[in-house]
Amino acid sequence: MTKRDISMAVIRRLPKYHRYLSEMMERGVDRISSKELSEIIGFSASQIRQDFNNFGEFGQQGYGYNVNDLYREINSIIGLDRTYSVIIIGAGNMGGALANYGFQALGFEILSIFDNDPKKIGKQLCGVDIRDVNILETYMSQNKIDIAVITTPVTVAQDIADRLIISGITSIWNFTPRDLVAPEDLIVENVHLVDSLMTVAYLLNESNGSVS
Amino acid sequence: MTKRDISMAVIRRLPKYHRYLSEMMERGVDRISSKELSEIIGFSASQIRQDFNNFGEFGQQGYGYNVNDLYREINSIIGLDRTYSVIIIGAGNMGGALANYGFQALGFEILSIFDNDPKKIGKQLCGVDIRDVNILETYMSQNKIDIAVITTPVTVAQDIADRLIISGITSIWNFTPRDLVAPEDLIVENVHLVDSLMTVAYLLNESNGSVS
Repeated sequence: MTKRDISMAVIRRLPKYHRYLSEMMERGVDRISSKELSEIIGFSASQIRQDFNNFGEFGQQGYGYNVNDLYREINSIIGLDRTYSVIIIGAGNMGGALANYGFQALGFEILSIFDNDPKKIGKQLCGVDIRDVNILETYMSQNKIDIAVITTPVTVAQDIADRLIISGITSIWNFTPRDLVAPEDLIVENVHLVDSLMTVAYLLNESNGSVS
Repeated sequence: MTKRDISMAVIRRLPKYHRYLSEMMERGVDRISSKELSEIIGFSASQIRQDFNNFGEFGQQGYGYNVNDLYREINSIIGLDRTYSVIIIGAGNMGGALANYGFQALGFEILSIFDNDPKKIGKQLCGVDIRDVNILETYMSQNKIDIAVITTPVTVAQDIADRLIISGITSIWNFTPRDLVAPEDLIVENVHLVDSLMTVAYLLNESNGSVS
């Protein structure tokens, strides 16, 4: 079965499995049933069995899952058994927060940060060299980059995206509050913080009992 | 109709409507049909009509929507016609990025940042006072806080959440890679950046044609 058959809903649950299995391993849990996993992770047991069935045979009826094996499987399915080269465009607070987040431990190597501020270029942010964004295309022609992270002001986000696309980028992690115009086959993962905060506002008003 | 009837899927689409309508207003667009809106925003026209029908009568058959009216309606439905008091726990890069993001323009007033680092306490981060996290409970008893943002190291996230909950917080915006244990009626909005990046990794491997 190719991964293309898997729905985005399943794909978006994989990191949560990864996180919980990782915590169980740290706590020394060896074996877990789909029912126990269900109680911890908050998906139904049948949902969990269905999710895993997408990727082949995991565990044995009545015996539950071996936590280590399951973790290794999920890790490999997500693609965390390899490394990724990452660049960040925008050496501001968000760029620094991401450079410093600890993604390296998961295999995401942050090779360079780009900015247009002469005061920042040539310096480092969280141990990563800051380069002139003017050499972005040259840098990309000389280095194989898997993921480009955009943390620039929103006004230049599309321009940066266009330059990354022309330079052959295949995936963009977008932190600006703008839906980028991009070719269909480009992977664009948006972290729209404004949307997330607006959802909090909505739920807060709803819980206060307001009526629309 | 109370807002409680609205599904989370609809709620999560509201900020995108807000964003696109805001851009249309800036471009001076007065009126738009659900078909035109559909082409721009990427939801089907019937989806858009259904979404809006949840909130009452918008627009008139054959005439489309008045962009300003629709924007004002969505703005009010989300709850952006009032202000929110926000505190951030954790004066690191992410805390700074959020303090500096511009949420104030949407009515989210960041009142204070809390940290346990003596070198940071008493200083400012992006114009916001940094206070000792030891006085968190006292501060919360003296100030009405709508939203608490957690950007601490993951190891103390649950402890901070517990202290916020005891202090009467109703909504938490969580930036740590941990699912917080919280009462059912607490609003917890997670921004799990690791999950988002793992999704990029999965899609990148999938697009490379690997077979599971």
